[in-house]
Amino acid sequence: MNIQAEWMRGGTSKCWVFETDHLDLTRISLDELLPRLFGSPDQRQIDGVGGATSTTSKAVILHQSADPDVDVEFTFAQVGIEEATVDWGSNCGNCSAVVGLYAIENGWVAPQGDVTQIITRNTNTKQIIVQLVDTPEGALPIVPQAHMPGVASAGYKVGLGFKDPAGMTTGSLLPTGNAADSLSVDGRNWTVSMVDAGAPVVVFRAEDLGLDAGRYGTWTGDVERQLDTLEKIRREAAVRMGLAPTTAQAARAIPKVAIAAAPADDLESDINVMMLSMGKPHPALAITGSIALSLGARTPGTVLHSITGEIPRAALRLRTPAGVIETWSEKRDGSMLVGVDRTARSIASSIIHLPETLGSAAEGSLASASY
Amino acid sequence: MNIQAEWMRGGTSKCWVFETDHLDLTRISLDELLPRLFGSPDQRQIDGVGGATSTTSKAVILHQSADPDVDVEFTFAQVGIEEATVDWGSNCGNCSAVVGLYAIENGWVAPQGDVTQIITRNTNTKQIIVQLVDTPEGALPIVPQAHMPGVASAGYKVGLGFKDPAGMTTGSLLPTGNAADSLSVDGRNWTVSMVDAGAPVVVFRAEDLGLDAGRYGTWTGDVERQLDTLEKIRREAAVRMGLAPTTAQAARAIPKVAIAAAPADDLESDINVMMLSMGKPHPALAITGSIALSLGARTPGTVLHSITGEIPRAALRLRTPAGVIETWSEKRDGSMLVGVDRTARSIASSIIHLPETLGSAAEGSLASASY
Repeated sequence: MNIQAEWMRGGTSKCWVFETDHLDLTRISLDELLPRLFGSPDQRQIDGVGGATSTTSKAVILHQSADPDVDVEFTFAQVGIEEATVDWGSNCGNCSAVVGLYAIENGWVAPQGDVTQIITRNTNTKQIIVQLVDTPEGALPIVPQAHMPGVASAGYKVGLGFKDPAGMTTGSLLPTGNAADSLSVDGRNWTVSMVDAGAPVVVFRAEDLGLDAGRYGTWTGDVERQLDTLEKIRREAAVRMGLAPTTAQAARAIPKVAIAAAPADDLESDINVMMLSMGKPHPALAITGSIALSLGARTPGTVLHSITGEIPRAALRLRTPAGVIETWSEKRDGSMLVGVDRTARSIASSIIHLPETLGSAAEGSLASASY
Repeated sequence: MNIQAEWMRGGTSKCWVFETDHLDLTRISLDELLPRLFGSPDQRQIDGVGGATSTTSKAVILHQSADPDVDVEFTFAQVGIEEATVDWGSNCGNCSAVVGLYAIENGWVAPQGDVTQIITRNTNTKQIIVQLVDTPEGALPIVPQAHMPGVASAGYKVGLGFKDPAGMTTGSLLPTGNAADSLSVDGRNWTVSMVDAGAPVVVFRAEDLGLDAGRYGTWTGDVERQLDTLEKIRREAAVRMGLAPTTAQAARAIPKVAIAAAPADDLESDINVMMLSMGKPHPALAITGSIALSLGARTPGTVLHSITGEIPRAALRLRTPAGVIETWSEKRDGSMLVGVDRTARSIASSIIHLPETLGSAAEGSLASASY
């Protein structure tokens, strides 16, 4: 069986983009189909399109929306690597950045003016993301020329504005009701902030993990030695945020983990952060998580606010392993948009070959899929 | 610019397959074009089709041959990851295994009988590789069903027979004239065999590296701690084999390195081996290197022969990190074929997007390409 897909870079991720209709035609459960197409389970994903890392084993499934207020609806899938599973529990900001561009390139939205606005809805989180694609003089440039930290090559500039993002998953920016909480794990108390905006995030202070806060370059190794502890605290936070009934049932992808500290002698950033993705230090930044960090930093009493203090600008500058990333916020049409700028481009248009017959190909298999 | 390519799994590698004509049309030097398409230089190859590992940053360029004795000519390209370079100095046996299948799937060779023979010539090494693709009742099965060690999913069975492979690169099976030599590096003497068949290989005894020969599972870590020394010896061997005038000028890809020991209490294999690829332990086996190991083991006086002794069968069983791989040899049409069986399949048919204009697009740029 042949399945059409577009392989796109969104920010610092590679994402396989499928149209909902094309996957419907297979009549195969996506929880079965996507891992097979990606070559999972296999730590190298050698027999499929997956890239064998968390940032390259991702899919986006999208279609034009029937809702007149929304142009495109999309679902994000984090495809397992060593396990034949799909995590539908969160969105990926980097992959989100391909959706507006896909809509323009496929004629779903006509470019208009120097910046074309595409209203997208992410179905994992119900989050509306307003995408602002640079289209100078009403057209995508032939040669993309925008740059961003962490990507050497150019792409099309895409602004991602998360519309009124606070509490989208749990109903509240601070789901425990507190700006900071103490979690007891492994006989120790950990002070964290649990914030829900863009994605649910649990935030640690770097010092509490024994990191040398001022020497950002040393964090990765020190964090890697504490992954087990961080995972335990993350699961405890999942329960406290109401995301899972027990620690054992906590999803792999949410809440996300962020470690934060004040920058030492650094005029370029307001705060230094390292996020974890699927249990490992993220090479750049989870965009959805950065939205939580932005709102968290503007909320007195949080771990983040104790680091940044009051921020006099609309922008918050976050140092990440891939460079400094700026989040922005603006009022638009009576809503608050909190966002970041990314670049995106299409790497390849593909027909993926599915060699075997999968599953029962039962009637209505799509209706029972997890998205 | 859009460039057509087929993404195929060959053995334990993922290979991007281009037709020579399609690349000619770009009028761009392949040394510039391939790294850009793959997203290099970038350790994550995030803006291209490369997979950020040595086994997934590979290309095959092929066309039907004008020589009536050859069906398909192909060139292998090992595309750099952290450097925007292409190594044209060697062939890849795993990627070789896609060529016969590609020829059948594209109508270049009609399937005939239960096994279809495709005569291929690798231009990097001038090696003729006779490919034997299973085509029961004269057709490729709709659903591929052959398995091999190191790959969980099925593929099409491809036998790769290297025709008279001894000395293809240097002119001699034993380019130094000796079955074993002593190389002096870092104030120590290292006993090695330098063998040229399929690819040039320098073979060490595991014991000489201080490995616990009988505990194969412990090798990787111990080898990784000695990569610098191994690289120095490899470069010294490059000079002794006549592959480079000085150690500084030795190519990255050849000679390959193999570490060998007698199996302990293992009735499944004749010899345990670990190969290095681009300076790292290979997760499976370099096929071209396994041809050298096969002929080396049948040559008295080599490090290999001292391990295996006389082998009473046509098959040699090599334990690799991915499982036991068997090489075979047979006489066919007056020649010696030495080979292995692999599986291969097409993962995706793609149009790769090249965003920028590259190079000078000068007249005759293809004529000056390195292949």
